[in-house]
Amino acid sequence: MNPKLQWLRNKMSSLDLQGIIISNPVNIRYLTNIDAEGVLLLTRKENIYITDGRYIEYVHSTLTLYDEIIVYNITDVSRDDYENFFMFCENVGFEENYLTYSKYKEYIRKYKINNFVETESIIEKQRMIKDEEEIREMQKAAEITDDCFSYILTYIKPGMTEKQIADEIENYFRRRTDGLAFETIVASGENTSKPHAVPTERKIQKQDIITIDMGCRVNGYCSDMTRTFFVGSVPEEVKPIYDLVLKNQVQTIEQMKDGENTRLLTKMVENDFKLNGYDLIHSLGHGVGLEIHEAPYINYKSDLPLKENMVVTNEPGIYIPGKFGVRIEDTVQITKFGCISLTKSEKNYIII
Amino acid sequence: MNPKLQWLRNKMSSLDLQGIIISNPVNIRYLTNIDAEGVLLLTRKENIYITDGRYIEYVHSTLTLYDEIIVYNITDVSRDDYENFFMFCENVGFEENYLTYSKYKEYIRKYKINNFVETESIIEKQRMIKDEEEIREMQKAAEITDDCFSYILTYIKPGMTEKQIADEIENYFRRRTDGLAFETIVASGENTSKPHAVPTERKIQKQDIITIDMGCRVNGYCSDMTRTFFVGSVPEEVKPIYDLVLKNQVQTIEQMKDGENTRLLTKMVENDFKLNGYDLIHSLGHGVGLEIHEAPYINYKSDLPLKENMVVTNEPGIYIPGKFGVRIEDTVQITKFGCISLTKSEKNYIII
Repeated sequence: MNPKLQWLRNKMSSLDLQGIIISNPVNIRYLTNIDAEGVLLLTRKENIYITDGRYIEYVHSTLTLYDEIIVYNITDVSRDDYENFFMFCENVGFEENYLTYSKYKEYIRKYKINNFVETESIIEKQRMIKDEEEIREMQKAAEITDDCFSYILTYIKPGMTEKQIADEIENYFRRRTDGLAFETIVASGENTSKPHAVPTERKIQKQDIITIDMGCRVNGYCSDMTRTFFVGSVPEEVKPIYDLVLKNQVQTIEQMKDGENTRLLTKMVENDFKLNGYDLIHSLGHGVGLEIHEAPYINYKSDLPLKENMVVTNEPGIYIPGKFGVRIEDTVQITKFGCISLTKSEKNYIII
Repeated sequence: MNPKLQWLRNKMSSLDLQGIIISNPVNIRYLTNIDAEGVLLLTRKENIYITDGRYIEYVHSTLTLYDEIIVYNITDVSRDDYENFFMFCENVGFEENYLTYSKYKEYIRKYKINNFVETESIIEKQRMIKDEEEIREMQKAAEITDDCFSYILTYIKPGMTEKQIADEIENYFRRRTDGLAFETIVASGENTSKPHAVPTERKIQKQDIITIDMGCRVNGYCSDMTRTFFVGSVPEEVKPIYDLVLKNQVQTIEQMKDGENTRLLTKMVENDFKLNGYDLIHSLGHGVGLEIHEAPYINYKSDLPLKENMVVTNEPGIYIPGKFGVRIEDTVQITKFGCISLTKSEKNYIII
């Protein structure tokens, strides 16, 4: 059996679960490498994946005997089959943070489940810690992101639109990777004051501020990087804010290591921003992996220690409504004694 | 108040709901035009949208006084506020097909809800019937899809990869629309046997079969069209299957009208395929709107009448594993006496 399914079986034993239903497709991808629509059942003796006609051929071509997964076409699963899957299971786990309320009720009925048990995101928690292979994919994704950023700095010229620049970035990624980790943000001028700006037809000016937030996917694994940079020169009014964001981003990198608390990390940045009259209006960071946003979250509500081989972002930002904003973001790997920035692009004033 | 919120308030009265929590972002977009992350509450007297710092500025810029929506930043909502929102509400509705089991439990606790009531997809059901403005957007999206298909037929040359062709289609859409309705499928040769093929580095051959499934978005509304076509000539072994798929696609279009049953439509195609030794392995069609797949679904499990101004796809397909596949798909608008195909590209043998 593949090691991730074996891990889950061990975890189930320790939780006294005789069965589990996995429906979150990202968790299924993580456990089995299957990237389709369907549901994964671990019963007492078998691993079962139920999908439909659209994916049967693909799923068979992805799995090997070694995976020990039996594939069913949903149209071939009878009412009796459903009732038999968990027949001798006292406790069956489910993903309460993914399963909808209506599916929850439907599954209890359809599978005749005795005791349907919340599993407190066991798989998401396991996904926080990346193995060597996962980190290799993320290093590749980060490297291509750095390369893309170097390229795009030479590409941007006054008169181009934000959309045009976003297209160029996305084509760069598509030619070299599985595609985008998320919709690219290219914001210029006053648009930089919106943390989640969507690229518009606004044209780059001869003196302008630009924020680009971008990432790609390598074998499913994401990268995430943001830089704010300048055309012509750095406006005097922006400098103190840029310096404050950069100082906090660098200090956070210096703090991040195994054992460091996510809430404390956030509080330190919040306090320094407040001292200077600004607010941190979004999270300081988030986990990255098969999803662009995943556990652990680094914000004032979270409260857990970073662990070795977590991969997270570090992205403080300050936004002055209607005027401008600055965000600087890297994807970093946590180690025992510090952290390694996977994205390595320049962070001091960049002027094109 | 905007007419869609007014409609929902009337619906709530008839269902004896004094409040409702809408969390599905597509339903929120439909009701309010807000395209962000947050939750919409209709309380006894107020319409409230709770979002976070990332979206506050954008949300204020989208709404007008006419919308009568009060916007809260989630960090400003106190425990008391949550308990007060539905204070005098006996029944509060929720979206059981969207809300996760854990949010369901959290909301009951946080909002102190007496009776949290399933609402049986009332908004999704309303979204099935498009108004004039929605149909106009979808006509535009379909027209651009047809134009893109005409263009791409002139663009494709032997030696190009599937990925290259998909990139060209996606750039075409990005320059003219809000972007893609879904990841474009470009499958060639034996890859056409996978209904959900992902574009690969396979190069187009001098004699080849190609399936393209594509769509774009105009003001959020999607188009969806598939054509299977040929390089050089139509292989003899493909002809009978192409003819059978086309015959069923055309017959379905002729049948589709107000009152026609979705299950019966599917059965007719299934039976004709079976008579010829083939299976219909996916749905015959699905609703299209703000989502690329939405209600109503047209398959053997669904059982409801089509209604005037539903917009749905009609997409029979046959797939011979490891060999080839044929799918022909249009997006059509249902009318009282028939249907109007919004996508209008050629369906007889296309040879490039």
